Parts: sequence; structure tokens; C-alpha cells
Amino acid sequence: MPDFTDSLKPAAPDGPAILAKERHQSNVPVNQLAEYLFSGHDFLKRQQRILRVLANDKLFEKKKQQNLSRPERYQLGLARAKQLRRFADQYQWDGEDLNMAQYLCDDVSPYMVHYSMFITTIREQGDENQRSYWLPKIEAMEVIGCYAQTELGHGSNVRGIECEARWCPQQKEFVLHSPTLTASKWWNGTMGRTANYAIVVAHLLVPKSPDSSDYADHGPHPFVVQIRDMKTHKPLPGIAVGDIGPKYGYAPMDNGYMLFDHVRVPHSAMLSRYSWVDPNTCTYSKPANPAVVYGSLTAVRASIIMHARLIMARAVTVAVRYTCVRRQFQDRDSKDQDAPELSVLDYPTVQIRILPLLATMFALHYTGAAMQSLYESTRAKIDQGDFSKLAVLHAQSSGLKSLCTELAANSIETCRRALGGHGFGGGSGLIQLNNDYLSKPTVEGDNWMITQQTASYLIKRMAAAVAAKGESQDEVEAACREWLRTRRSGGGSPLRIFDDNKQIVEAFSRRSRYVTHQAYIQREVKKRSWNSMLIQLRKVSHAESQSILVSNFYDALQQSDAELQPGVRIHLQKLFKLFALYTMEQEARDFPKALAVSDEDLDLLPETIQTLMADIRPHAVRLVDAWSIPDYLLDSALGRYDGKVYEDLFNRAHRLNPLNDITFNPYYQSEEIVMGQGNDELKKIMAKL
Amino acid sequence: MPDFTDSLKPAAPDGPAILAKERHQSNVPVNQLAEYLFSGHDFLKRQQRILRVLANDKLFEKKKQQNLSRPERYQLGLARAKQLRRFADQYQWDGEDLNMAQYLCDDVSPYMVHYSMFITTIREQGDENQRSYWLPKIEAMEVIGCYAQTELGHGSNVRGIECEARWCPQQKEFVLHSPTLTASKWWNGTMGRTANYAIVVAHLLVPKSPDSSDYADHGPHPFVVQIRDMKTHKPLPGIAVGDIGPKYGYAPMDNGYMLFDHVRVPHSAMLSRYSWVDPNTCTYSKPANPAVVYGSLTAVRASIIMHARLIMARAVTVAVRYTCVRRQFQDRDSKDQDAPELSVLDYPTVQIRILPLLATMFALHYTGAAMQSLYESTRAKIDQGDFSKLAVLHAQSSGLKSLCTELAANSIETCRRALGGHGFGGGSGLIQLNNDYLSKPTVEGDNWMITQQTASYLIKRMAAAVAAKGESQDEVEAACREWLRTRRSGGGSPLRIFDDNKQIVEAFSRRSRYVTHQAYIQREVKKRSWNSMLIQLRKVSHAESQSILVSNFYDALQQSDAELQPGVRIHLQKLFKLFALYTMEQEARDFPKALAVSDEDLDLLPETIQTLMADIRPHAVRLVDAWSIPDYLLDSALGRYDGKVYEDLFNRAHRLNPLNDITFNPYYQSEEIVMGQGNDELKKIMAKL
Ligand SMILES: Cc1cc2nc3c(=O)[nH]c(=O)nc-3n(C[C@H](O)[C@H](O)[C@H](O)COP(=O)(O)OP(=O)(O)OC[C@H]3O[C@@H](n4cnc5c(N)ncnc54)[C@H](O)[C@@H]3O)c2cc1C
Ligand SMILES: Cc1cc2nc3c(=O)[nH]c(=O)nc-3n(C[C@H](O)[C@H](O)[C@H](O)COP(=O)(O)OP(=O)(O)OC[C@H]3O[C@@H](n4cnc5c(N)ncnc54)[C@H](O)[C@@H]3O)c2cc1C
Repeated sequence: MPDFTDSLKPAAPDGPAILAKERHQSNVPVNQLAEYLFSGHDFLKRQQRILRVLANDKLFEKKKQQNLSRPERYQLGLARAKQLRRFADQYQWDGEDLNMAQYLCDDVSPYMVHYSMFITTIREQGDENQRSYWLPKIEAMEVIGCYAQTELGHGSNVRGIECEARWCPQQKEFVLHSPTLTASKWWNGTMGRTANYAIVVAHLLVPKSPDSSDYADHGPHPFVVQIRDMKTHKPLPGIAVGDIGPKYGYAPMDNGYMLFDHVRVPHSAMLSRYSWVDPNTCTYSKPANPAVVYGSLTAVRASIIMHARLIMARAVTVAVRYTCVRRQFQDRDSKDQDAPELSVLDYPTVQIRILPLLATMFALHYTGAAMQSLYESTRAKIDQGDFSKLAVLHAQSSGLKSLCTELAANSIETCRRALGGHGFGGGSGLIQLNNDYLSKPTVEGDNWMITQQTASYLIKRMAAAVAAKGESQDEVEAACREWLRTRRSGGGSPLRIFDDNKQIVEAFSRRSRYVTHQAYIQREVKKRSWNSMLIQLRKVSHAESQSILVSNFYDALQQSDAELQPGVRIHLQKLFKLFALYTMEQEARDFPKALAVSDEDLDLLPETIQTLMADIRPHAVRLVDAWSIPDYLLDSALGRYDGKVYEDLFNRAHRLNPLNDITFNPYYQSEEIVMGQGNDELKKIMAKL
Repeated sequence: MPDFTDSLKPAAPDGPAILAKERHQSNVPVNQLAEYLFSGHDFLKRQQRILRVLANDKLFEKKKQQNLSRPERYQLGLARAKQLRRFADQYQWDGEDLNMAQYLCDDVSPYMVHYSMFITTIREQGDENQRSYWLPKIEAMEVIGCYAQTELGHGSNVRGIECEARWCPQQKEFVLHSPTLTASKWWNGTMGRTANYAIVVAHLLVPKSPDSSDYADHGPHPFVVQIRDMKTHKPLPGIAVGDIGPKYGYAPMDNGYMLFDHVRVPHSAMLSRYSWVDPNTCTYSKPANPAVVYGSLTAVRASIIMHARLIMARAVTVAVRYTCVRRQFQDRDSKDQDAPELSVLDYPTVQIRILPLLATMFALHYTGAAMQSLYESTRAKIDQGDFSKLAVLHAQSSGLKSLCTELAANSIETCRRALGGHGFGGGSGLIQLNNDYLSKPTVEGDNWMITQQTASYLIKRMAAAVAAKGESQDEVEAACREWLRTRRSGGGSPLRIFDDNKQIVEAFSRRSRYVTHQAYIQREVKKRSWNSMLIQLRKVSHAESQSILVSNFYDALQQSDAELQPGVRIHLQKLFKLFALYTMEQEARDFPKALAVSDEDLDLLPETIQTLMADIRPHAVRLVDAWSIPDYLLDSALGRYDGKVYEDLFNRAHRLNPLNDITFNPYYQSEEIVMGQGNDELKKIMAKL
């Protein structure tokens, strides 16, 4: 309905004018930087191609979806997942195309676990027969699967799960059973409403001989189990399965629960590439090298870092564009009464929240890339039977998963708060992003827990370095030895962090060795209990991960001019410095203790950081532009490329908000809710409580 | 429907057994501590009384409400708000009873701004005629009001708003007008759908003389304006008003937008206790002492601290109870293969996230109480015309609002993450809590901005102390003078923080003076620009606020045994130390710079904190019990008093989740969403996009 608001314009200067000026004042070569960041995988072209498909389909329209209830969000999610799969057939999308479509659609898809953990597990743990039997059905999505490991009572401690698969030599079947309520599978995505099959992880119990009633527990193993009828889609007898209900985020995903009441599955249900139960003798054979399982975990973790950087890029893109458009207060010290208001990004207290994050997403980028290629080379070695690099890769990727998802998760909320009131509104584009991403510090290894794996590895290498027998086993040990040498000769003088970036890298490395060594002394020399050291161990892991981030960032900037154009490099160098020095300031006391940085230099950090931010500020808009996050993905009035912030906010409120179609009865004397409708609406709502 | 899951029990030991043991092992006198914390206002008795009313009314049942859509949440919120008001009539509730009911119901009520800002503004800014005209209508809720100050383009900078009220001497009316889109009122609670009246804050424009066309702008002033028809509840002509749409939290609240197209209101619309326009001469008279306005702001801020402590208490109650019930992994160093798993609260990396927050909520408690009584005494002085204490009170309350709401907001997410997977689930009870509370760092003064007010005051007092003319104006200045004296005689030796709690208090105070003095030098001596100092100014404000928190906590523990029983005191002393030393560790480098704590003592902090946590750990459950947060308010499977965590989680999923009533068609080849229903559901969803 047209009304007087249609002709209103925002006060000048409006968003488009402001962003035009921002873009004009900077010499960041946006396209070149974008190419440089995303060249590898044709990312940008694919993004454009897939975007066109989604943008033309009403089903993928996002602007009003925040008004849906959680049950409706699941239904929409399912409809979209199905449509994307139809598109994949229609346009002959490959796997990366489908991933891109899911990324842009931005739903946690009800098919997600089918495409990822379910298929991967069958591929990696199934024997040849199993693979050739299941994979075609999976690819045709006749079989829709999920991955049921975690239970109500146990997640992190996988060995603590209670579900059992008891081999019955008489019937030659496994009996799946959940002996307690806490044995209920829980959290497993795609399982609640969507899947008809599941990988069920259960303790393998095998009689010690075919007619013994004494069982050996061989620990958790994966089984392929049909859970729902292929026609009616109702649960099979003896299985209670459903969706666990509303969560922080993940609205379109049906995370599920499942219990078994003595459910029988055939011998072939157990995935048998590595482990096997002889159906006649009941002998159990176990995997030759259990380390093979690490491989895919590490691949997942490298991709988590690459994902984390895009999450940050989204939050920072919104924050940078909006804090330029947003103007609030004239300069307090200005003599000019008519001075224009300042963009809030001009205030150092806004910069300090946003610009270090801008730098951090570049840091994550280089380490994600480095981990990916490290993973590929390690994988190649493993295929040749060489497992030597696996342990270090696994240790590093655990620590990095912990640190990087923490940084990314916190960045969203930090950006959101920096936006003032509008950050709290649905137009920020940061709500679903935050709600969904906040799962990441917990899933794929709880962030606080997995730092123990990294620290444990580092302490072992330090112990080996102290023992100094033969050659160093890997780079970490070599670095420990080098550090011990320097230490014996006095520890070295503080590094000159303001003169030379290389010295910053060295400072982080020295500090990491120092905190590792301290932990080594506690654990190995003083024999302190592991659990009493957990806080310190987390610090060890973070110190090493920060050192890796700083060092990979530095290394990437040493490329030749052909690979890294000077017009790009100059900006990246500032971002490097901002990331490194900002990180250093957060952890300041460690550095003088480690004889890495002098106390006087630490005192200079705040001013140096502020100067760097002032340098980067004029380029902020172009620097985020280079990340090429499409408006469709951002779904943010505040973060729009064109800066039409206020027009979009108003449009969403005045034209797209369904609540405004209803007139309510606000007077408390009456129970009527919708004006003129009597008690009907109240009854409808009450029925849902 | 009964099924095999009905007879299943959680693995032993179950939650009730664990919590019984936890409660048994501690000597914290729960009832005495509860009495001590809440005695003042009969809080606990009122809580019980009101709870009984809500618990017996189906409308206030919370367990399934997370499944409602946002438009439904508003309707439910309105129905509840109306019902509470009917209860108030029926049971003759006073204001505090109604507040308690709203607190327990835990909806951000659509009536909220009517009860708070709307009524307060009329009471404080209306003249006698206006008050006697409006207040009865407001109390009868014939007039339902909101407070419309913030606009799309301006919030923090109130002077920047664009809405205008132009006095028309001919018609003797004000003309309200929104000249641009950014002049749209925005965010104003209760306005979107509920209110029929609004306080509209607009620039008062008055002709320089009755027939001049030259207007003087007297800045923002409040006007009482009817916005909707009293019968149809439709917007009046010339007014566009509606709800702004979904937000991070605040689902039941109708934050609104509003624009005026030359809307005429009578002379009496302008609230005229302090400011007035003579309708005949066009002369404008302004308030004698603008400081009166501060008064109510400060009252609000004291109550924000008291509220923040209850928010933290909720989060920490859930976290403590669940991390006791949750067991994961045996002790890695244990020799006993059958050792039971540890409660995750036994891990220091879980303690360090939760127990300092437990201590912090006590710290907030004492400072909230101190600010409340300071406010009351100041108010009494103001009523006698003595404004001398107002400035310091305002400065302190700004800094404390910033720090305390920050601590409380962060505490929810910190607790949530400490809970692993179940923290992400709807049964955590932390989702709506977080989503609603995350508005607090922004509203009632953006947390990053208002630290400037505190710092500005502190710098002024330091400047006065340096000048040292006559008597000190207030305690802050006296403390600055004292500090300057000590400094001239060498700065004093580092304090013995481990020997004597009083020295901890002194250390915080010394550090606050030190950072204030540094800022003073920059601003007043080196004449540095204000905006370039913002990061430092925030630090000044936080340092002072931390000092206040530590000092009030310490003072409270000096009460006699009659007021504070030894059995309670002993636990509070540990919490004091944990709060103070944990806070000190976060800010460590400041303290040696301020010559307050030696570097060696700082090195000892991590171990000291860990020991304190180990001391407090066995009492954690009883310590949260004392906060007496009812299960109904927590609405948390994880935080239940009785520890039936897994039973409740399962019940919510298996019996209360509406999604499990529907069978879906998961096969992508078909567009059908609900099995056997054809395309109907998809169409319904599409219609909402
Ligand atoms: C959105 C989401 C999707 C999921 N999808 C799936 C799925 O598809 N399939 C599936 O099988 N599972 C899934 N999960 C489960 C997930 O893998 C687990 O929740 C996760 O591994 C964490 O385990 P937990 O919940 O047992 O945490 P807990 O281990 O109970 O953690 C609780 C707390 O204890 C601490 N803690 C635990 N052990 C130690 C220790 N030894 N030392 C120190 N601290 C410790 C943790 O740091 C944490 O603070 C999903 C979970 C979520 C939230
Ligand atoms: C849930 C909710 C309910 C509300 N209810 C009402 C209501 O009922 N009535 C009403 O009138 N209003 C209401 N508001 C509006 C609220 O008062 C404002 O949103 C709040 O004051 C913040 O102002 P802003 O949005 O303009 O933030 P901005 O000032 O735009 O802040 C954006 C960023 O700029 C920074 N910044 C701004 N100025 C400076 C400076 N000078 N120096 C350094 N940094 C600066 C801030 O720190 C912040 O990071 C509500 C808002 C919310 C979120």
C-alpha cells in the first residue's frame, strides 16, 4: 500500500554516497586481491554461477524467514535441500557446486550429515562389498543416512557410550540395544526426521567362544542400520527415534535421539574394512594401524579453518560497511559547530573491535591454506605407508581448530555489539550466523578439551629435545632443540619487534617454546598430575597455534612480486603487523618472561596498534569488498554492498513484517488478542503450549 | 503414547544422587545465606507467593514456547501481559508483585515501556495539570504508552534526532513532522502494535516571535501524542507506525517504528514541568537545573546492577548443577581401571570458566546494594536542593553499568559453552536468557560509549587534585590527592596482596588512580585529542569500576558476626579473593606499572586462583542453591534443582516436541514435504516467504 513514507529519503549524506567516498579514497586493488585470495578453486566464478540459480527461485528468498517457527524452518530446510538436489541433477552440478549452493543458501541442511559423515564413514570404513552395495544407493538418495555416535550421556568420551551391539552366534546377527536412558543416541544430525538409515556407533560385544556367555567388549564400532520404513518413513519396530527439539541455532536441521530395544541386524551391518568378527569362530580382528582414522579428521579441521575465515569475513563485512555509513556525534574537540558527524568507524573504540578481526581473517586464510596443502602431502605419504608426519599434523590441527573457531565465534558477537542498536535487529544479518556458528566451539572436538592433544604432543617433543637422542623426529622437536641451545647460552636478547617482521615471528616462536618448556618441567620433571595442569596446557596449545598463524602469515608475504603484487602486499603487511601485535598485546606478560620482547616494547604496543588501525581505516571498505561476500549470503540491511542501510531496514519493517498485517486488542480487560476476533487466537496459541 | 523408553533410567549415579552428595559434602548454610542475600525486600516470600499463581495457569507454561514463531510469541506475550494485569487486580498486587510476576514469567512484556519509561516520564516531566490528567488514565491502562526517542538514524546522539515539533502560533498547535526516512522513530518498545499513546521526543522549534518565520531550535523535548484510535486501534491519520520485525531476542516485545506527516497536537502535549512555551508570546523557558534529569537515570543504573547479578545467578546455577551431574572421562592419571568418571566441574578448565563468575555475582550484589543506598541518600539531598553528590554518583553508575552488564552478558555465553553439546540445546535454559540479555550492553547507554562519562569525571577530579585548591570536592578527589602525596614520596612499595585482603583493595585503588593520572597527563597536560584517547578512557573507567566492586565486596565482609554469620563469612571471603585475584590476573600488567603489585606476586596468581577454586568447588552447588532461582524461572533441564537432567531432556524431546508429530517425505524426487499430503505444506511455507 502506497503511503507518505514512500517518498522519504534518508538524511544526507546517504549510504551510497558514503561508501562511494570510502571506495574512492583507497587504492586497494579489489579485484586483484579477490583473485589472489580465491584463485585456487575457481571459487568466485562458481559463486556467481550458483548465485544466479538461487536468486531466481522464490524458495530461497531469505528476507522473511526469521518469522517462521522452528517446525516451519525444518520444513523449509527440507524443501530447499530437496530442491538443491534437483538442481544438481538438472544443471549437472558437481560436489563443489552443491557445497557452494548450500553455503549460499545458508541453511544447515537436513541432508548435511548424509552428504558428509554418513557417506565418508561408509567410504572409509566399509569393505569393498559394503562400498559397492551402499554407495550407489546413497548417491541416488534412496538410502538417506546419518551418523549416530554421541549419546545423551556421552559425547567427548566416545568410549563411554553405552549402546551395545552384541554378536549372537546362533542367529548370526548383532543385537543392538540401549540399556539405559543415557544410552539414547543424541544430537545426531539428519536423524530426527529425515534419515532412513544410520551409522550407529556401538560397543562391539563378542562371546569369547561361539557358545560362551562371557562377552569381550571390543569398544565402539560403526554399524549400518535401517531405522525407518522405506515406504511409510515410520520408525522400525524396536526403535524410538525423533527430533530433539529447538536449539540455539541449526533450526532447519533435525538433530535426533534414538533408542534400540533389542534390534537385530545382519552380520554385514558392521563396517568391516579394518575390524571384523568371524561369524563362525567369533574371532575378532582389529585394525593394523589405528592412526588411519586421524587422516580424515585432519582434513575436516583444515576445512574448518577455511570456513572460519569466511564466517569472520561475513561479520566483518557487515561491521565495516555499516560503521562507515553510521554517523553519530561531531568531533568533541572540533571548533566547527556545523562539522558533519563522524562515521563511527572513526572512533578508536570501534576500530579496536573490528579492525583486528579484519586482520585475523587474513591470518586464518593463510594458515587454512597451509594446513590444506600439508594435509595433502601427508595424505600422499600415508598412501605410501609413511605415517611419520601424521602426529604433528594432528596435534597442530587440533590446537588450530580450537583457536580459530574460538576467534571466529567471538568475532560475530564482537561485531554485532559494535553496531549499537541495529546490531540487535533482524536486519543485521548476524543473528542466524551467530546462532548457527556457536555450535562450532563444541562440535568436532570441544575447544577446551582438544587443546590437551596439542599440548601433550608438544610436551613429548620437548622431552625428546631435552633427551636429545639421535636426529630430531620432526620440525617441532628441532625447534625445541634450537630453543634449548639458545637458552643454555643465556636465552638471547629481546627481539626487535618494531624493526623487522621476522623478529615478531621469532618472538611468538620463542614464547611458544618457553610455555611448552614450563609445562614440560611440571609434567615430566615434577611429575605433576595432568588434570591439575589443564589451564596451563590450553595456554601451551594456544601459544603454539598463535605462533603458527603469525608464521604462516609472514611466510605468505615473502612471495615474489609476480605472485603477490606490490599494491596488494603493502596492505597485507599492515594487516600482518596488526594481527601479530594485537595478539601479542592480549598475551603480553608471556613475552618478557620468555625473553622474547622487552617490557618497554610492550608498553609501546597500544600506541603502535592504534597507529596501524588509523593506517588501515581508509582502506577498510575495499579490504572487505575483496572478500566478495554476496549480498544474498549476507542477508543484511546493514552490510549491503550499496550502503542502502536505512532504506532496507525500513522496507523490512514497513513492508515485509507479517506482524503488521494484524491489529491487536491491547486492553487487558478483554481476553481477545486480535481485534474483533474473540478468543480464537488465544485458543490457538494455548493449544501449542 | 507409552513405549519401551518409559521404563528406562539413566546410568548410575543419576543426577539426584550426585546432587545429594554434592549438597551433603558442603557446610554452606543455604537458608541463612539466602536470607542474608535477599532479606531487605521480602524478596523470597514474594517470589514464592507469585510463583504459585503462575505455576497454576496454563498460559504461563514455558516448556514448548521455543516452538512458536515470532509473531506467535508476540501474541503470547500480549496474552500473558494482559493476564498478569488481571491478576494484579484480582490479587491486589502492588508494583513489586507485578514486577516479580514479570521477572518469573520472563517475557519481555509488550506492556514494559508503558509501566516504565512512559509513566516515569509523565510523572517526572509533566506539570501538575498534566500529571493529574494523565496518570489516572495510565493506571487504568486506558492510555497505553511508549517512549519514542531513538530514531532510525540516531540513538546515542540524542541531539542528532530529526523529528521536529514546530510551534504554530496561529493555530496554537505543535506540528510533528519527520522530514526524512532516518527521522523515523525506531526501536521504541510497546509502540509497534500495543500502544495507543507515545512520548515523542522531538526538536522543539519555536518562531523567534509570533509572526516570524525564523525558528529557534531548543533541542529535543518530550510530547504526549495519541498515535492510534482508541476504538479501532488503527494508526491515526498522518502517522505510519508498526513493529520493526524479528530481533536477536525480545520476541514478545513490539519494538516499533513511527513517522509523522505534519501531525498537529495541542499545546498541552508538551510536557511542561521544566520547559515551557508561552502560547501567546512564543517565549521559551528552560529548566533551572538540567541535572535533575540524571536522577532517574542513576536509579535505573543501580537496578541494572541488581538485575545483572540475578542474570548471572541464573546462568551460573545451570552451569554449576549440570557440570556436577555431567561426568565425562576417568582421571587420566588414575591407576584404577574402574574408577568412576569425573564430574566435569572437577576439571580446572571447567572451573576457570564458571567459578570466577560465581564469585562475580556476589561482587555485583554488594555494589548493586551500595549504589542503591547511595542513590537514595543522594535523592534525599537533591530534594533539599543539594546537587553536590550527583555528579560522582552519575559517573560511577555509568562506568558500573558498562562493566557489570558486560560481565553478565558474557557470563551467559561462557557458561553455555562450558556445558558442551547440551549447552547448545533448548533444554539448557540459556538461549532466551542470552538472546534477551544481549540487548543490555547497548541499551540505557552503549557500554563502550558511556565509559567516556566516567573517565571524563575522573580526569576532572585528578586535575583538581593536582591543582589542590581548598578542600577536596568529593571522595574521589580526596583519594587522588592522597595518591599524589604517596607518589611524591616514591609511590609506595608493592602491596602484600596474599597476606591481607585490605591490601588487595588498596592495590585496585592504586591502579585506578595510576591509569587516571596517565589519562590526565595526556589530556590536560599534553592536550591530546579526546577521540584519540577513547581506548585508554575505557580502561580508566573499567579500572575505577573494578576498584569499586572490590572495595564494596570487602567492606560488606567487615560486618559484625551478628549481621554476617561466621559460617557464611568464611565462604564469602574465599569468593572475595577469587573475584579480586581473578580480575587482577586479567589486567595483570597494570598493577606493577602502578607500583601496586610486584611482578613476582603476579606470577603466583594462576596457582593461587586454582587453589581457591579447588577450595570453593565442593561448595558450588550449595552456593548457587542460596540464590533461590526457582526451576520455573530457569526453565532448564540442565539446571533443575533435583538433578533430573537426562529425564527432562528426554521428556522434552520425546514427548513435548511438536515436530515429532509429523512424518515427512525425505525423498528429493518429490516436492511433497509432509508424507501423503501432496504439495499443500510447501505452498503454505512459500506463502510466508
Ligand atoms: C549442533 C550439534 C550437532 C551435532 N551433530 C552430531 C552428529 O551428527 N553426530 C554425533 O554423533 N554427534 C553430534 N553432536 C555431538 C557432539 O559431537 C558433542 O556434543 C561434542 O563432541 C561435545 O561432547 P559433549 O556434548 O559430550 O561435551 P562434554 O564432554 O560433556 O563437555 C562438557 C564440558 O566438560 C569439559 N570436559 C569434558 N571432558 C573433559 C576433560 N577430560 N578435561 C577437561 N574438560 C573436559 C568440556 O570442555 C566442556 O566444557 C552434535 C552436537 C551439536 C551441538
Ligand atoms: C532491544 C532494544 C530496545 C530499545 N528500546 C527503546 C525504547 O523503548 N525507546 C527508545 O527511544 N529507544 C530504544 N532503543 C534504542 C537504544 O536506546 C539505542 O539503540 C542505544 O542508545 C544505542 O544507540 P545507537 O543504536 O544509536 O548506537 P550507535 O550510537 O549508532 O552505536 C554504534 C557504535 O558506535 C559507537 N559510538 C557511537 N558514538 C560514539 C562516540 N561518540 N565515541 C565512541 N564510539 C561511539 C558505539 O559504541 C557503537 O559501537 C532500544 C534499543 C534496543 C536494542
